Amino acid sequence: MRAVFQQELADVQDRLVSISELVADAIDQATTAFNQSNVALAESVIERDAQIDEAAAELDELAITILARQNPVARDLRVVVSALRISASLERMGDLAEHIAQLARYRFPEKVVPKSLRPTFKEMGALDVKVARRLTELLRTQDVAEAERIRDDDDQIDALHLSVFDAVLGETWKGQAVDTVDATLASRYHERFADHAVLISKKVQYLATGDWVPQDA
Amino acid sequence: MRAVFQQELADVQDRLVSISELVADAIDQATTAFNQSNVALAESVIERDAQIDEAAAELDELAITILARQNPVARDLRVVVSALRISASLERMGDLAEHIAQLARYRFPEKVVPKSLRPTFKEMGALDVKVARRLTELLRTQDVAEAERIRDDDDQIDALHLSVFDAVLGETWKGQAVDTVDATLASRYHERFADHAVLISKKVQYLATGDWVPQDA
Repeated sequence: MRAVFQQELADVQDRLVSISELVADAIDQATTAFNQSNVALAESVIERDAQIDEAAAELDELAITILARQNPVARDLRVVVSALRISASLERMGDLAEHIAQLARYRFPEKVVPKSLRPTFKEMGALDVKVARRLTELLRTQDVAEAERIRDDDDQIDALHLSVFDAVLGETWKGQAVDTVDATLASRYHERFADHAVLISKKVQYLATGDWVPQDA
Repeated sequence: MRAVFQQELADVQDRLVSISELVADAIDQATTAFNQSNVALAESVIERDAQIDEAAAELDELAITILARQNPVARDLRVVVSALRISASLERMGDLAEHIAQLARYRFPEKVVPKSLRPTFKEMGALDVKVARRLTELLRTQDVAEAERIRDDDDQIDALHLSVFDAVLGETWKGQAVDTVDATLASRYHERFADHAVLISKKVQYLATGDWVPQDA
């Protein structure tokens, strides 16, 4: 029974890693589509979001089966409950990647943001991809140093997010309303994506260090 | 043991109802603060968000304790796991109410949106409040008719959300970039608030009808 249980827990972890890989690919392609106005790539991200949703739903079912059959307690129980939450955040990260791809598709053949903001979005996009790859690594290795790096990356993304507002609200902003709307939404999606990565990495970190923070704060 | 367990499940439900009441009060006051530029009210919403976070965290701990001690299976297990997810959505709804209050505070003594959009936001705000009150009722009574009404209200909110973009991107839009940013974010917060209510009501509905949809879709 114990060996089966350990195998099931390992399966949960493996699945989290593969969903995280799908999410990392999605944000990589979504931000590329966004920055290069690549509508085919955008559509492929949009189509494949269902895969992430499905993988997350399957993981949830597995976690619920483990709860029913194995009655895990103490740390094992927290690992399984955390998996449910991590899967919800990964699923949401997939949605946000999809939203970024949708913006690229809506505006095609135009670019989503005006020239002056493109370097900022390129940087935010690259950081989101970095965060997603680190997250996969964190879920695979439970190396908490990775969690710290995700938080540092997130601080940079937050600063870029604020700089988008500064640009849009500044005196030199020449954008039309459509540019303002797109920049606002796109920046918000990029920022929320990394927020979820931070939420997940806090959960992994607390599980690894034995210190549990129940809140999503 | 069974009686204790039933009492614990009832306690979970009661707590969900009270968190939902806190969220309904928060959105009521946040949208009032937003529409009337009432900075004191906005600050009170912002301050009290910690209460919602705390109540959600306590409920999560209770749910985890029940999982460990009672080893619920079948429908009971789904009820407890759903409670964890409902609590996460309620906590997020509290955050979104807080964001709406923050917009009111940032722009004070100015109003957040220009005159032309105020009726729209008044309507969206009133619908969000309605949705939150219905959600409390749904969690209290498990009356699935309430879930249907929440979905109808959400459809109206989605339509208003799209109408904000139409207004902002229309030829008659006279707003400055700051108005465009605020309208975009405010509309998004109002819309996401109702989305979470729909997610929760789907979970309650499927638990009530015995038909389980694992996905957050």
